[in-house]
Amino acid sequence: MALPQKHFKRGSTKPDLPEDGVLRYFSMAFCPFSQRVHLLLAAKNIPHHKIYVDLIEKPEWYKDYSPLGKVPALQLTAVEDQPTLVESLIIAEYLDQQYPQPRLFPTDPLQKALDKILIERFAPVVSAVYPVLTCNANAPPDALQKFEKALDVFETELIKRGTPFFAGQTIGIVDYMIWPWFERFPIMKLNTKQKYELDVKRFEKLLKWRDLVAQDGAVQKTALDVQLHAEFQKSKTVGNPQYDIAFKGKL
Amino acid sequence: MALPQKHFKRGSTKPDLPEDGVLRYFSMAFCPFSQRVHLLLAAKNIPHHKIYVDLIEKPEWYKDYSPLGKVPALQLTAVEDQPTLVESLIIAEYLDQQYPQPRLFPTDPLQKALDKILIERFAPVVSAVYPVLTCNANAPPDALQKFEKALDVFETELIKRGTPFFAGQTIGIVDYMIWPWFERFPIMKLNTKQKYELDVKRFEKLLKWRDLVAQDGAVQKTALDVQLHAEFQKSKTVGNPQYDIAFKGKL
Repeated sequence: MALPQKHFKRGSTKPDLPEDGVLRYFSMAFCPFSQRVHLLLAAKNIPHHKIYVDLIEKPEWYKDYSPLGKVPALQLTAVEDQPTLVESLIIAEYLDQQYPQPRLFPTDPLQKALDKILIERFAPVVSAVYPVLTCNANAPPDALQKFEKALDVFETELIKRGTPFFAGQTIGIVDYMIWPWFERFPIMKLNTKQKYELDVKRFEKLLKWRDLVAQDGAVQKTALDVQLHAEFQKSKTVGNPQYDIAFKGKL
Repeated sequence: MALPQKHFKRGSTKPDLPEDGVLRYFSMAFCPFSQRVHLLLAAKNIPHHKIYVDLIEKPEWYKDYSPLGKVPALQLTAVEDQPTLVESLIIAEYLDQQYPQPRLFPTDPLQKALDKILIERFAPVVSAVYPVLTCNANAPPDALQKFEKALDVFETELIKRGTPFFAGQTIGIVDYMIWPWFERFPIMKLNTKQKYELDVKRFEKLLKWRDLVAQDGAVQKTALDVQLHAEFQKSKTVGNPQYDIAFKGKL
């Protein structure tokens, strides 16, 4: 799996990927939605090739894999016609069915629906925090309040469920699907004037959950340092995203 | 099931719904996402109470069912804690698992993932056509071109699948999930200056598919007349949506 470890750009030659039946995972190293898929690949120990894509200067050939140019994408090379899946949650569900060890989605249809709805409820958290995380100077002044209000839903839900993980005694799909943003929230301590951190009282359960999830093997395997996340966001804010800093010291 | 047949408004009393274990379907009569759920309820002949909600002047009590105030919502009254499901596609998948006759989602995990991705590909169709459908005077001049380009994906896919329905020889989940907008497209013939209609050559397969789907029992059961759709859109455009005209002649 000695593929190029850099983000492919516009004008790049389409990589000559081996026809070995191994999954092809298309990603951008700092993309939280891509990390969702990466977490499942890691948790289930699924062999895969990683192909990184520059999202600003997209390689022309990438639309052959993902027609709308989105990441993450996962090409199933061992299947007829070698289809490429997109949408992180759809990919996650497919992987969970094809590689059931460990099972991450609930098997009960109702709990599965409720967990998917809870994952959807994370969208307002993401949209509220996005301008703050990305150091946008035009972030609405009430962005952090909106973010906290949206996050309250998850604190309340953890209390209601009464378990260390959203999935129960062990980690599961809700935990993995919302994790990537928790890895990025500490950027705010570095990048905001008020050195923002989650309130230890208001988010007591969620902060315990965060510390617990941080110890998970797949989480550790896919993690990037908060300094790197912060550096990337700064480069993105000035319009020159430095995707390849993800590999600092690794190239 | 003799519930009030009008849209509940702000200030309304929370309806005293019977505790009979029957599903409660919360909807707005002209909402295409609500119709998705209605189509499944009809196709599977699932008993349900219909409760209509005014989306501009939302009843205060509605957040007890749908915390974000969204429709459609489906309350499962026969289940412990009587949870309410939201998000049309999540509700559809739940109903398909609980009421498998007729089965509408593919049972093969890959085909299921591909069908869900195809349903997601309908979002650009919806967002492009929305300003035209809603007679928005500020609709971008290239809205119809964008709409047609997004719709090409579905014409191409029908050709590729080579079957009368997206699901095969009989109607299935993709067909039902995209149908509500096809019921509304003919509004454009009535409401646009150029009396817009889908091009019979460019969308040959899709127009045949439309005529076929229009004959489906569930589609007929949930259908509203194009004149009513057009009238509703006009009322919405002037900022005074007339939800209850859905029941014209039926009240």
